[in-house]
Amino acid sequence: MLQELFTPSVQHVLDLVGIFVFAISGALLAVRKNFDVFGMAVLAEVTALGGGLFRDLVIGAVPPAAFSDLGYFVTPLIATVLVFFLHPEVERIQLGVNIFDAAGLGLFCVSGTTKAYDYGLGLTASATLGLASAVGGGVLRDVLANEVPSLLRWDRDLYAVPAIVGAAMVALCIRFGVLNAFTSGLAVCTALSLRLLALKYHWRAPRAWHRSSVKADEPDQVG
Amino acid sequence: MLQELFTPSVQHVLDLVGIFVFAISGALLAVRKNFDVFGMAVLAEVTALGGGLFRDLVIGAVPPAAFSDLGYFVTPLIATVLVFFLHPEVERIQLGVNIFDAAGLGLFCVSGTTKAYDYGLGLTASATLGLASAVGGGVLRDVLANEVPSLLRWDRDLYAVPAIVGAAMVALCIRFGVLNAFTSGLAVCTALSLRLLALKYHWRAPRAWHRSSVKADEPDQVG
Amino acid sequence: MLQELFTPSVQHVLDLVGIFVFAISGALLAVRKNFDVFGMAVLAEVTALGGGLFRDLVIGAVPPAAFSDLGYFVTPLIATVLVFFLHPEVERIQLGVNIFDAAGLGLFCVSGTTKAYDYGLGLTASATLGLASAVGGGVLRDVLANEVPSLLRWDRDLYAVPAIVGAAMVALCIRFGVLNAFTSGLAVCTALSLRLLALKYHWRAPRAWHRSSVKADEPDQVG
Repeated sequence: MLQELFTPSVQHVLDLVGIFVFAISGALLAVRKNFDVFGMAVLAEVTALGGGLFRDLVIGAVPPAAFSDLGYFVTPLIATVLVFFLHPEVERIQLGVNIFDAAGLGLFCVSGTTKAYDYGLGLTASATLGLASAVGGGVLRDVLANEVPSLLRWDRDLYAVPAIVGAAMVALCIRFGVLNAFTSGLAVCTALSLRLLALKYHWRAPRAWHRSSVKADEPDQVG
Repeated sequence: MLQELFTPSVQHVLDLVGIFVFAISGALLAVRKNFDVFGMAVLAEVTALGGGLFRDLVIGAVPPAAFSDLGYFVTPLIATVLVFFLHPEVERIQLGVNIFDAAGLGLFCVSGTTKAYDYGLGLTASATLGLASAVGGGVLRDVLANEVPSLLRWDRDLYAVPAIVGAAMVALCIRFGVLNAFTSGLAVCTALSLRLLALKYHWRAPRAWHRSSVKADEPDQVG
Repeated sequence: MLQELFTPSVQHVLDLVGIFVFAISGALLAVRKNFDVFGMAVLAEVTALGGGLFRDLVIGAVPPAAFSDLGYFVTPLIATVLVFFLHPEVERIQLGVNIFDAAGLGLFCVSGTTKAYDYGLGLTASATLGLASAVGGGVLRDVLANEVPSLLRWDRDLYAVPAIVGAAMVALCIRFGVLNAFTSGLAVCTALSLRLLALKYHWRAPRAWHRSSVKADEPDQVG
């Protein structure tokens, strides 16, 4: 029921757009890390599909959408080919990539929350899984590239918060029985706008109070 | 049946205690790595729930306990808030944290083994999953923080062995039909005590014989 | 049906051989990273069983083979003991290890594709999962060891391509109804041969065109 908020084809096209832009970010990181073309394809697939794959495993939707929909699998490969041949041009339109990435973030946190609720999870768990499906791919991308995940670093503009707000809006709409195409779209736009504002004004989240003087690049030995 | 060794509420409180102390260790590592408050929350959740999540996915218990019990989700957030405001104080009571962490290790290896056996796994597989649910969260924590997992490093006090002993004790008790609240508690205490002894006397595990002189920090290129 | 291409015992022995050689590569990396004996065992298990575990979780085959077949669990431990006592000798026969690793690659991509198709996945998804079960263990091994996965690096001889070819051959054989013991064996041999040729002639995959001058070891800050 909830799944049919958008007509299936519109939903599907939006999904593919989100997958495409996430795949672009994976392939670009692979180029920066000097990986070969297969490394680019792996990183593109993981970034685009990793979050949704995690969500589907948790809710027991096997085989996951990533493996049952051919379009989901092929789209990241197209992104890889594009970046392979045109990556300086893609880098140059970083602003455009950021806008699409923000759109992907908004779309995924909303569709992830909705799908998790459809599979019987509670509202909090659904919103958490919506967040996880929006940011999970990026975390896996950074782990595979042997980087500290962007999501966790304090010197990055807010990324989790817009997704949390979007997912929470969907959960509240479900709670009060007002989830429809309009309110879903509103949640997507809110997450998208917050992310773009965070990028424009470099919003950051606070770190722990009273930290002793630790160096970010040479952390103390950790037990 | 086995699940009811402890009355549900006692079992639940013990679980939450284990989750809380594991979450503390995740949040503390996040502070040391200079992550922001969302990074702290993510690392706290992953450390506290990652091991059990892996166990539940493997045995097919979906949705996993981490997503069906609100208390499991909220407890790491409380730990995050605590560390956010009071982390120098929390660091100062490192000994206390270590003791609780050892208790969490003991509790999780026993409850993990029991739950896996309840889902029909063999004794060896159950003990392995018990071990995985006890140490898995810490491994995920270190991977996300881009560190070599504490569990694998030779210059850390024994961590896996106490959990292996506890899980093996439970498996043996099941094998001989003597698993009850008393023997379960004995397994928890054994794992806890072994871990505390390992911390006190700096017990280490051996490395491979006849190693050539490799430098730990600059490993050779690996193929 | 497809599972019975080989008689069960032959298939099982081949699986154990693949698991054994993958475990050797995990244990050797653990020695190079200076891990203790438990770190060796963990890395051996993860390398040997990680790819198949991922495949089984995706297709919903729970509990996964890694936890339901005792031989799968014990074999990596034997490899660990061997490397523990004899690792200089094992290092010296690196060529032999490479040949067996190539055999494991071929066996796993074929058996993974076949098993995924048996569980109802499409041909492309089956081949992708076959590839993932062949290379997934090695990726997990490198992630746990805090290294950039070998699979993704451009300065490594081709590893993914032989597995892709083998998995694609199986998918095509299924498509045209000619999958049998002979064609399966042919796919294994093709993947094995391609990997050995890649090792001998140092075949590499191309990197993105028009890269700006990035340094492999000091990648730019990545957003």
